Amino acid sequence: MSSRGAGTAAVIISPVTGKPRLVDPHHPHVGLEDQALTRGDGVFETLHVLDGDAYKFDAHHARLSASARSCDLPAPTAATCRAALAMALDAAGPGSQDPALGLGAEHSVKLSISRGAPGDAPWAWLTAAPVPDSTFAARRDGVSVVLLDRGHDPAEDSGLPWLLPGVKTLSYAVNVAALRHARAHGAQDAVFTASSDRRILEGATSSVVCARLAPGAPPTLVTPEPSRGVLPGTSQARIFDVARAHGWGVDHGPLHPGDLLRADAVWLTSSVRLAVPVTAVDGHPVSTDPQLTRTLTGFLVGRDIGHGTGGR
Amino acid sequence: MSSRGAGTAAVIISPVTGKPRLVDPHHPHVGLEDQALTRGDGVFETLHVLDGDAYKFDAHHARLSASARSCDLPAPTAATCRAALAMALDAAGPGSQDPALGLGAEHSVKLSISRGAPGDAPWAWLTAAPVPDSTFAARRDGVSVVLLDRGHDPAEDSGLPWLLPGVKTLSYAVNVAALRHARAHGAQDAVFTASSDRRILEGATSSVVCARLAPGAPPTLVTPEPSRGVLPGTSQARIFDVARAHGWGVDHGPLHPGDLLRADAVWLTSSVRLAVPVTAVDGHPVSTDPQLTRTLTGFLVGRDIGHGTGGR
Repeated sequence: MSSRGAGTAAVIISPVTGKPRLVDPHHPHVGLEDQALTRGDGVFETLHVLDGDAYKFDAHHARLSASARSCDLPAPTAATCRAALAMALDAAGPGSQDPALGLGAEHSVKLSISRGAPGDAPWAWLTAAPVPDSTFAARRDGVSVVLLDRGHDPAEDSGLPWLLPGVKTLSYAVNVAALRHARAHGAQDAVFTASSDRRILEGATSSVVCARLAPGAPPTLVTPEPSRGVLPGTSQARIFDVARAHGWGVDHGPLHPGDLLRADAVWLTSSVRLAVPVTAVDGHPVSTDPQLTRTLTGFLVGRDIGHGTGGR
Repeated sequence: MSSRGAGTAAVIISPVTGKPRLVDPHHPHVGLEDQALTRGDGVFETLHVLDGDAYKFDAHHARLSASARSCDLPAPTAATCRAALAMALDAAGPGSQDPALGLGAEHSVKLSISRGAPGDAPWAWLTAAPVPDSTFAARRDGVSVVLLDRGHDPAEDSGLPWLLPGVKTLSYAVNVAALRHARAHGAQDAVFTASSDRRILEGATSSVVCARLAPGAPPTLVTPEPSRGVLPGTSQARIFDVARAHGWGVDHGPLHPGDLLRADAVWLTSSVRLAVPVTAVDGHPVSTDPQLTRTLTGFLVGRDIGHGTGGR
């Protein structure tokens, strides 16, 4: 028995200019010649929904539309995506509660566009599901990571549009292979490094942010340069915007492995996992700062979650 | 109205250790959370079938199994794949006839493995369809190609298993983006080059083979070194095996753009398109040799097609 799909709802937008339509997520909906299936030929975004509000909706829709444009795919309008989201949330289960953070009812939403079967029109779909317990555990306990050589410096790709630099396609086989490799080697996540100078690039499915603290001064946050072949993270961007408004320092790399080991805290940031503390890099322990993690999480969900409400 | 799927048959093997089951290719069979769909997380092979015989079946099954192993996926046995193939061919239309080559009834078969939905077992599917007219046109008229920088030297990836070097995954978004780029720039296909030294790597979905002729000597065929980040082509390998047995010279690169322009003939080789003559590289004409193309095609289909049977 599989537990997949418990509390999940799904909406199809076909063609992408059409009206969203609620479908049974437990039924098959995709043909064997669909090019998202046969070629990973499509784009996607993952969104976090808290008490029915989709965070950073505009940033995600903008990035989805930019990804689609790079692949010569049409994208559903923001209004259509919002309608699809409302429809899915209405049909989905009540969401799940992070037992430590007690933020509210949380859903993970994935919005994707496929080129469709040859000769057919591109279409989109959206799934909404309660955030899994494994995500709550990662937020609470953090993750150990391995550094994996990206095989080249992705900055080299940036002028070569056919390589889809900065495009969030469905072709994620390498990203999931990196996660499998990490898990097979006793870690929980993977961070890519550039071959050229071993600088930190990004997590397999996240951005890397680290903090430097100095007595009597606001914290400084640092992330790798987004222009150098790294997918610009919507969560990292939101954290930096709010931190800057609070008078914190925000800076862009380069970051090298030693910088992570010397940092006062390091996180993998992504839409649904929020700010996950990194506890070790290649087996070497990394400092964590639970209060700073709560502050960054608060930046992401748009509220002060102070010292938390442990166990609520 | 879409003409997709005319004469197509489909078989599902779920789980991959199960029995093949004929399905209606016009019905949906895949859920919205399947990881081949959402992550390009799977592997595939494309096979050529002529008068019911699948060419290079063992080479394709071996490469599919190796790809699956690299992704920690199980693969159906050769016996299961053969049973699925027989079932699909029995149900498919009569195949199509190349009007120029008159080889017989041709089908294109795609065999893929998906990781399945989270919590579900991996599964496989096979589709069989008549070879499309566009393929016959490419064999007859050849294709013009553009050279596209691969952004890095894929030889750098070869010791890094998490980058899936030499693995034929479903994550083909960059390959299809390269083809789109070529077509948007007036060409019909794309050939990747290494950033480091601009040497020729491979076509977007094919291998590159060129011929050098010298009076009174057998031809010499040259292809890029397969070990240097290039997917080893089953068609290129078959051509080389037969050519070697005929006393031809066979050699492995490096090949640079100037070598293609100076060659006596250049082809893109792949399972279904067979040996497609390259007529131009970045707008510069390339020599073609129709008789040599027929000979190479004969090497691939295991018969002497001599001077052809035009129009049969």
